[in-house]
Amino acid sequence: MAEISLHRPLPAADVPQWDFDTDVAIVGLGATGACAAIEAAAAGARVMLFERNSGSGGASALSGGEIYVGGNGGTDAQRSAGFNDSTEDFATYLKMAGGPCVDKEKCDAYAQGALAHYNWLKAQGIPYRGNYLPGKHIEPVDDSTLIWSGSEAAAPFCDAAAPAPRGHVIAHVGWGGGRPLVDILEARARDLGADIHCDARAVALIEEDGEIVGLVVRIDNLNRYVRARKGVVLGTGGFAMNEAMRAKYCPETLRLNSPIGDKDDGVGIMLGLGAGGEAIHMEQFFSTCPWTMPEEQAYGVFVNSKGQRFINEDCYHGRVSRAALDQPGDRVYLLLDIAHFSQPLELAGITIAGTGETWEEVEAELEMPAGTLGATMAFYNAHAREGRDPLFDKRAPILTPLDQAPFVALELNFTTSYFSFFTLGGLKTSARGEVLGRDGVPVPGLFAAGRCTSGLPAWGHGYSSGLSLADCTFFGRRAGLSAAMRG
Amino acid sequence: MAEISLHRPLPAADVPQWDFDTDVAIVGLGATGACAAIEAAAAGARVMLFERNSGSGGASALSGGEIYVGGNGGTDAQRSAGFNDSTEDFATYLKMAGGPCVDKEKCDAYAQGALAHYNWLKAQGIPYRGNYLPGKHIEPVDDSTLIWSGSEAAAPFCDAAAPAPRGHVIAHVGWGGGRPLVDILEARARDLGADIHCDARAVALIEEDGEIVGLVVRIDNLNRYVRARKGVVLGTGGFAMNEAMRAKYCPETLRLNSPIGDKDDGVGIMLGLGAGGEAIHMEQFFSTCPWTMPEEQAYGVFVNSKGQRFINEDCYHGRVSRAALDQPGDRVYLLLDIAHFSQPLELAGITIAGTGETWEEVEAELEMPAGTLGATMAFYNAHAREGRDPLFDKRAPILTPLDQAPFVALELNFTTSYFSFFTLGGLKTSARGEVLGRDGVPVPGLFAAGRCTSGLPAWGHGYSSGLSLADCTFFGRRAGLSAAMRG
Repeated sequence: MAEISLHRPLPAADVPQWDFDTDVAIVGLGATGACAAIEAAAAGARVMLFERNSGSGGASALSGGEIYVGGNGGTDAQRSAGFNDSTEDFATYLKMAGGPCVDKEKCDAYAQGALAHYNWLKAQGIPYRGNYLPGKHIEPVDDSTLIWSGSEAAAPFCDAAAPAPRGHVIAHVGWGGGRPLVDILEARARDLGADIHCDARAVALIEEDGEIVGLVVRIDNLNRYVRARKGVVLGTGGFAMNEAMRAKYCPETLRLNSPIGDKDDGVGIMLGLGAGGEAIHMEQFFSTCPWTMPEEQAYGVFVNSKGQRFINEDCYHGRVSRAALDQPGDRVYLLLDIAHFSQPLELAGITIAGTGETWEEVEAELEMPAGTLGATMAFYNAHAREGRDPLFDKRAPILTPLDQAPFVALELNFTTSYFSFFTLGGLKTSARGEVLGRDGVPVPGLFAAGRCTSGLPAWGHGYSSGLSLADCTFFGRRAGLSAAMRG
Repeated sequence: MAEISLHRPLPAADVPQWDFDTDVAIVGLGATGACAAIEAAAAGARVMLFERNSGSGGASALSGGEIYVGGNGGTDAQRSAGFNDSTEDFATYLKMAGGPCVDKEKCDAYAQGALAHYNWLKAQGIPYRGNYLPGKHIEPVDDSTLIWSGSEAAAPFCDAAAPAPRGHVIAHVGWGGGRPLVDILEARARDLGADIHCDARAVALIEEDGEIVGLVVRIDNLNRYVRARKGVVLGTGGFAMNEAMRAKYCPETLRLNSPIGDKDDGVGIMLGLGAGGEAIHMEQFFSTCPWTMPEEQAYGVFVNSKGQRFINEDCYHGRVSRAALDQPGDRVYLLLDIAHFSQPLELAGITIAGTGETWEEVEAELEMPAGTLGATMAFYNAHAREGRDPLFDKRAPILTPLDQAPFVALELNFTTSYFSFFTLGGLKTSARGEVLGRDGVPVPGLFAAGRCTSGLPAWGHGYSSGLSLADCTFFGRRAGLSAAMRG
């Protein structure tokens, strides 16, 4: 009998017995798996779902439960806040956010379908209060629905697409709305008859005549063989928690110490590759250090270790953080005046590196040569007073002079500060959720969505909060439906 | 019968007849294939080599014929020029040059074996004049042997490893020493009995019981079946000429218009992936715009579109060019004073974007805000006069004030200037030249080297001239030998 391996499917001829028989087998019970299960079951398929942990959640449950939604004239929350978000603007933003890694077909599909998807989420029971919370927020701390969660209002995005807030957050007081989001979706999947098995870890796919026809799962220390007559859906997340995979595929993350993930060890990517799929943009990752909290700090200016600015700081905090990681050296500085300073979050590991009555004193405390940071801030302040940022096109109200002494430089250190991250690369899939082979042809019987694929959030520098859950839920549904409709 | 495909090996059971029978079949007759053929034949194996073009060459023949060699106290050319290059310094440099993508095992193997490899190349008939040509050269225009071909003498490399020139160029008057290099290696392979077939394009591998046992080649519009009893060696180059692969795997190159390559369409990478291999660091690429010619221009200062410097310009021209491509916008500027200006190479597509009697006038001509470029140059010149570059640690003699009016800004435009490039990502191989599967285990019977693999030149920002031919020739030999010694 062939070996059980993540790296190559087991031939069906080597299956000793079929322990389970279903139409659609789903791996992983985060938002992706739950949405795939709901759609497959609603389409009439028998659905079994296997989760390696003792309960649902995955990385989705660690999130804020925020989903990036817009287009089609806007959601109820957008419209009542005065934003008539067009599909074209929404698609344009999504494509810019994908940068060089963009999958335009997925962007168009989502831009067209996002409003209906939002209504579907509500129909599953996800509650939204419906109100708009202006300002810069990582997540609402109350139960507000709609926030600015990306770089929509910042250059260069705002020059190409009319900006609108698009982060839609489940009604939930405090951070961590991802947990109830998954709970609601799981309950819905169960109501529709999905047969959920926890403590069941996928260890191999099963193939027959070039088609994926099942799955081997490890339950109670035994291999159990799952026949999946219509297909297998992978919803297993990225590989932030797998250091060997990070070293091989995404080595820039090795200097960061705060992966966001549950058991995200890339198992779905490995299974998909072994079945003839391919992985793309594996070097891409999201990262952020929570520098916009407290909120005053969002008005700060970033410089690198040479005292140079490098981005318009009014864009998404994760875009700023990701650009910070491209700078020479091992740290960047967030410059604030007394009007915009509060103690940083303890969690953030952001320290005070220098202070002074003038920017030149701060420069000297940081041991930067005279004429660097001081000159940068003189130039910035002179133009900010005129309401302009000729270098990076930062805009009001975030653009404001920092000229009330004393001054401070906070240090965001790539190794010791809290630079959270997760991976964005993964299996190449069609907009229908099919895993594509290297020849561009779907691997028959194999589907995937979420962070085990390269999807809407394809490019670290273009990430916006809610893009990943949008991708998980929208393409998770499609993957489940594509499997259920097969053959 | 199964389909003939790059993406999956043909089962041996479907082979209608074996048209050729050999021990080692090699795909591609560039430096990699020739070296693999020489070693395999010298080890007593029957060798057949298949080249899709009508003659030898590949991208190797388009190169300068420069090989990066050092360590072990230095080559004859190094020692007679006063450089006693230690293996440790050489290995340290190679590892820094690999950046986050480094394969330390390959670096150590090459650092230890490079001197013997150089002597082997001479024994194959490659002529070296043996002299040292100081200064900054892309390639010697005479027949000199030894040049500085990387960032050895520049920060941060020179702080970690004692610098030495390591670019060893075949004796050949003028550029283009790659052509005679391949010719000599090809002749040597023929002398040893390698059976070379041109106009023979590889279209599939053949497998039996999980081993690669042959190759399908297209000759005279017919499929011909090659039995390779010991193994197949891929030496097919990168994918610079395959726009679809670039879009999928290395999309940052899409804005560049000058690929360096012959038929480099990634066929070997596809064959290897289909056989269970894996591709790594596919987003990495080498790029350069020939800005150090004429030589005076090497003394210039680079600024991005914000008027900021971004690198110590005394490092390798390709490292500067690659960092330029990371800057915001679509161009960078090379600043020169009259003492260091000559007309740029016409080939380079470098234009004059601004001139002035002061740097402030140049700044205004480039429509940069007052206090940007002018301040950058005032700061640079003040420190250069003291022999220091406190920002990027550029060093004398390249560090020199640019203060003799008139001044000029040359534009290096990412789209319209000649930013040549080739890809660096490829199959993951062992230091013995075996193609590794995703589980880290060699794919039995499959070997590869050169730019269809990720090797010594793994990271675009660390490239040094001669690293790729070093990789092709050294690991090409190992791949051929590993195949010949098998089973």
